[in-house]
Amino acid sequence: MDINALRDAHPDHWNRAAAIRVLTLDAVAAANSGHSGMPIGMADVATVLWSKHLKFDAKNPAWPDRDRFILSAGHGSMLIYSLLYLSGDEQITLDEIKNFRQWDSRTAGHPENTHAAAIEMTTGPLGQGIATSVGFAMAEEMLRARFGKGAVDHHTYVIAGDGCLMEGVSQEAIGIAGRYGLGRLVVFWDNNDITIDGKVSLSDRTDQVQRFKAAGWHVQEIDGHDPEAIDAAIVAAKAARDVPSMIACKTHIALGHAAQDTSKGHGALTNAEQNAEAKALWGWTTGPFEVPAEIKSWWEEVGSRGATARGEWETRLAALSDRKQAEFARVTAGEAPKKLSSVIRALKKQNSEAAPKVATRKASEMVLEVVNPVMPETVGGSADLTGSNNTKTGDMGVFDTTDRKGRYVYWGIREHGMAAAMNGLGLHGGLRPYGGTFMAFTDYARPAMRLAALQKTPTVFVMTHDSIGLGEDGPTHQPIEHLAISRATPNMLVFRPADVIETAEAWEIALTQTETPSVLSLTRQNVKTVRTQHKTNNLVEKGAYVLADAEGKRQVILMATGSEVEIALAARDLLQAEGIGTRVVSMPCWELFEAQDEAYRKRVLPGGPVRVAVEAAARFGWDKWLLGERGREAKAAFVGMESFGASAPADVLYEKFGITAEAVAEKAKALL
Amino acid sequence: MDINALRDAHPDHWNRAAAIRVLTLDAVAAANSGHSGMPIGMADVATVLWSKHLKFDAKNPAWPDRDRFILSAGHGSMLIYSLLYLSGDEQITLDEIKNFRQWDSRTAGHPENTHAAAIEMTTGPLGQGIATSVGFAMAEEMLRARFGKGAVDHHTYVIAGDGCLMEGVSQEAIGIAGRYGLGRLVVFWDNNDITIDGKVSLSDRTDQVQRFKAAGWHVQEIDGHDPEAIDAAIVAAKAARDVPSMIACKTHIALGHAAQDTSKGHGALTNAEQNAEAKALWGWTTGPFEVPAEIKSWWEEVGSRGATARGEWETRLAALSDRKQAEFARVTAGEAPKKLSSVIRALKKQNSEAAPKVATRKASEMVLEVVNPVMPETVGGSADLTGSNNTKTGDMGVFDTTDRKGRYVYWGIREHGMAAAMNGLGLHGGLRPYGGTFMAFTDYARPAMRLAALQKTPTVFVMTHDSIGLGEDGPTHQPIEHLAISRATPNMLVFRPADVIETAEAWEIALTQTETPSVLSLTRQNVKTVRTQHKTNNLVEKGAYVLADAEGKRQVILMATGSEVEIALAARDLLQAEGIGTRVVSMPCWELFEAQDEAYRKRVLPGGPVRVAVEAAARFGWDKWLLGERGREAKAAFVGMESFGASAPADVLYEKFGITAEAVAEKAKALL
Repeated sequence: MDINALRDAHPDHWNRAAAIRVLTLDAVAAANSGHSGMPIGMADVATVLWSKHLKFDAKNPAWPDRDRFILSAGHGSMLIYSLLYLSGDEQITLDEIKNFRQWDSRTAGHPENTHAAAIEMTTGPLGQGIATSVGFAMAEEMLRARFGKGAVDHHTYVIAGDGCLMEGVSQEAIGIAGRYGLGRLVVFWDNNDITIDGKVSLSDRTDQVQRFKAAGWHVQEIDGHDPEAIDAAIVAAKAARDVPSMIACKTHIALGHAAQDTSKGHGALTNAEQNAEAKALWGWTTGPFEVPAEIKSWWEEVGSRGATARGEWETRLAALSDRKQAEFARVTAGEAPKKLSSVIRALKKQNSEAAPKVATRKASEMVLEVVNPVMPETVGGSADLTGSNNTKTGDMGVFDTTDRKGRYVYWGIREHGMAAAMNGLGLHGGLRPYGGTFMAFTDYARPAMRLAALQKTPTVFVMTHDSIGLGEDGPTHQPIEHLAISRATPNMLVFRPADVIETAEAWEIALTQTETPSVLSLTRQNVKTVRTQHKTNNLVEKGAYVLADAEGKRQVILMATGSEVEIALAARDLLQAEGIGTRVVSMPCWELFEAQDEAYRKRVLPGGPVRVAVEAAARFGWDKWLLGERGREAKAAFVGMESFGASAPADVLYEKFGITAEAVAEKAKALL
Repeated sequence: MDINALRDAHPDHWNRAAAIRVLTLDAVAAANSGHSGMPIGMADVATVLWSKHLKFDAKNPAWPDRDRFILSAGHGSMLIYSLLYLSGDEQITLDEIKNFRQWDSRTAGHPENTHAAAIEMTTGPLGQGIATSVGFAMAEEMLRARFGKGAVDHHTYVIAGDGCLMEGVSQEAIGIAGRYGLGRLVVFWDNNDITIDGKVSLSDRTDQVQRFKAAGWHVQEIDGHDPEAIDAAIVAAKAARDVPSMIACKTHIALGHAAQDTSKGHGALTNAEQNAEAKALWGWTTGPFEVPAEIKSWWEEVGSRGATARGEWETRLAALSDRKQAEFARVTAGEAPKKLSSVIRALKKQNSEAAPKVATRKASEMVLEVVNPVMPETVGGSADLTGSNNTKTGDMGVFDTTDRKGRYVYWGIREHGMAAAMNGLGLHGGLRPYGGTFMAFTDYARPAMRLAALQKTPTVFVMTHDSIGLGEDGPTHQPIEHLAISRATPNMLVFRPADVIETAEAWEIALTQTETPSVLSLTRQNVKTVRTQHKTNNLVEKGAYVLADAEGKRQVILMATGSEVEIALAARDLLQAEGIGTRVVSMPCWELFEAQDEAYRKRVLPGGPVRVAVEAAARFGWDKWLLGERGREAKAAFVGMESFGASAPADVLYEKFGITAEAVAEKAKALL
């Protein structure tokens, strides 16, 4: 590249973009780690986007109708930190830039949404940004349809790299975005021909332009260092209103640095001499972290421009009816409606009396049927298992190109894309997403499920067919380790309700979370209603509770979750018939039980009696409850799965794998 | 569809294919569960493929040079069961067909490779088949290059559905296959326009033909019910020698049944009247499960034809040098070379003396540098992190279109596709795959990792950067729950070696497995050599062992893995200095420790002393070792992670998260 020619062609633009390049180089050098090449390569695109198109107000980074900017190639974090500092963000200060990648700084190695209001989402695991952005763009369509263009009218811009596009989840994302015609979604592909291992051609020869076109996208190819071409492409992308846009930006990674166009340029450029040479070539003469006042003030002016748009938006919002304004404020704040608890309570009352024998996936549908009408911010969906996950209720309508008010999404066979897009729906604000698949396919959704927890967004993952109880589909479809997988994950609530009542209580908790995602582990097979005595209190909130206490001397405690609670109750009957006092503890949510004080935990699980836990899943993790917090020799046993499952009818499997009331009672007696 | 016209156009073909349709209908009806529509829709393609192209010998289903047939759309399992029964497979008998989806039958809901020799892999989780088949096809190329066309010369055929193609992993797979020009790979897309939720157009509008072309595939579109068109397409696909082929087969799901072309047709067709109507329309008059003798014997003749090809292959093989034959037999049997243990032992001896302070990822590279030259069946690779995972050794060469002998694969940023393809390399036979990524990206590879365990194939997953010790990249890249995820999975060995010696021992075990995949959890940061006294025995084989025993009265046992073993040793120094007798137990592999007899386990972990475990990860699962198998009050504590990590230098993180020798010693003392 002839840097001089680039500089001379657009000297003002060059210097403004160079500020990003210089800050990146200095911050990475100071941290002695990070990724220099991408921000240097994409500085031109970012400068044009932020100064000519992005609707943002640096002093109010979280106002609802801002454009969303998502750095899918999250390793290039110094790009967004530079942009935020330059344009006057109050959280990403120069000190933060200097503290890049240090303890307690806002400027983490990869952008984290919990560190600064202007960071829309946490990126770093490749492909997550582009997949989550689909949810952001979908949220904009839904909310615009609901509240009108006066309240909601913005774009979602994404910068993605080759890594994002090679990850499978990107295919799911471009498929969803193409299908649903998300015209406000604009993806810039940093087409720099470089990955960590070398040239892209080393591992990939996909024609990305044709690939995006095959999914119905509007695609352009431009020189990613030509500000006029960048501007024109963004204009054209916005003009393509009915389809998402991809702009393939031909760029040079680490432009102008000795490492330009090499995989070395991807990483941390810390050679002082080479860095000095690059700065000189860029025409930069100030010291480390110094940005000439004229350039800084130009950027700050850019950052302040959005105040006008925000002001106009506030005026438009104020013109809405009081009711609509209040509703907009409520959903934007993520507050559950007041009616939620009353419809849950009514459902509990009715069903504790009716005591239906239904699968908890069906119970979940019964809950959603009463919740969705009073909670218009819910967005439901399934990865092509609607009739199995029971996620669609009568009132929702179906989201489509012709119906943006529809609240149900047919995600297709795309568990990962669904999970990521759900995170985007939630992170955008104003909506509360839930979506279903089979629990074994937690595996497919995992990267996005973890990111929900890390990003503190309360996505609800509806995981049905939650054990060998699904029967004939066999071990590929039977979760064994999946409860453990989600339980081991920080900041995640895992609910395995025993019946319709616990299912309702679990939903109530999940739908009122503001920072924690939930997994609902639900049966395919019918289960008895075990909570036949109505209580207005939400017992699941305690995580575990005494469902049936011992008669006579308490010798045994049986612990169970979900479909195995009725097995524990039947085992209790066997034991009590022999005069062995037996308590049954239902444990629908370990995390909430752990959050109770020690006194409550010891009241539910006193140290004396022998303990048997029963769960049609791996024992892994159960020892904490079987053995922990006890003041004497721990006599305990587990009834569950020690291997993968098998293909056969559910009742045969329970029998063959020995998960029966008789087996539970025998294990308890053997310990006495 | 005009079924009569189809029948009349090719009456013989029709009846042969109809046998598949009828068996499917009868088996699903008998099981009252399953998926009827796909085998009915794809019966024509399967009949032409198996009778005119597929190289197989029904009586010797596992001979090494057979063509591979992979049913990626595994729910259509009755397709392969029908084909196997009809053509005379000795394991899939008529009784097995009648026992479809029942306990102990070979005919599970989804095909399982452990149930019959002719089933190449376990499918069901969508997309896995097509992604794994990439590894099968790659294996053929590699082995043909190594042993010559006389020994290895076959094709890999795959049937994939819309679900497979919507799953993200399929994009990774088609990218890899396109990049590496896998000309022997032929994918049939069952283009039936139907998913479970309804028409494909409900959730997807991707032009699959253009998408595959964008990745460099040879693509054809045919009528999937026209046997001549199917035959011609397969001929053309085989003629396209340098690129993989996709044949888009326009089919009608549940052809000729009342449920034809509907999503109902996808599932179990059990309506007796409708089934009878369909059979009549197909021109079938026999009772349930009855195949006219003429048709059965035609199929059996098809099944016997391959005996000739097999015989010719045996002759060609016998013409190879004795050494080459022995080597072919060895690698095909999955036997490790005799030299493996001696190079490992030499490396251990050398390094227990040199006691280098290296990261275990580097130690892993040191091991591979001595192993790969004596183990030519290894295939290494990385998902674009070669220099970080340290997976490439000097002698391997790089697999490419121009070098099929290369043993290193640049997989690109495709953890999931890599993991699935590695499974295929192993399942094919003759190769031993290992591949690397960051441990946090276990999440991306999970579906294929689970399937490795379920399929009993010994893939080695090299997971580096295995804790907060990776430092500045921050919480998106720092595994917390990932040890628990893999440990909770049945049939998986999870190794977290403490130093170069344990790393060598772990590799030796992983490379000699025949039925169990391994996860190697390796550090980014340098660690001390803790095993400075050379032992020829492989101590990791015991799973856990006493690394340093207490001096004086044994009051404390410290348990640790990986990088935290040196912290435990330092804590022991602190405690011993205060006169507190402290044992350190290194626990590199829980699963192997669990497999030891109780006497050994109690010798290593006697019940008396207080126990403190230290691992820079979630506590989840540790309570088993902290609290279990003890005859008295369990005094125990854990030092590790209770949240996600953070972005900062590694030593700062260890300090800030309290994972230090001082913290371990304090916890131990508090318990005394």
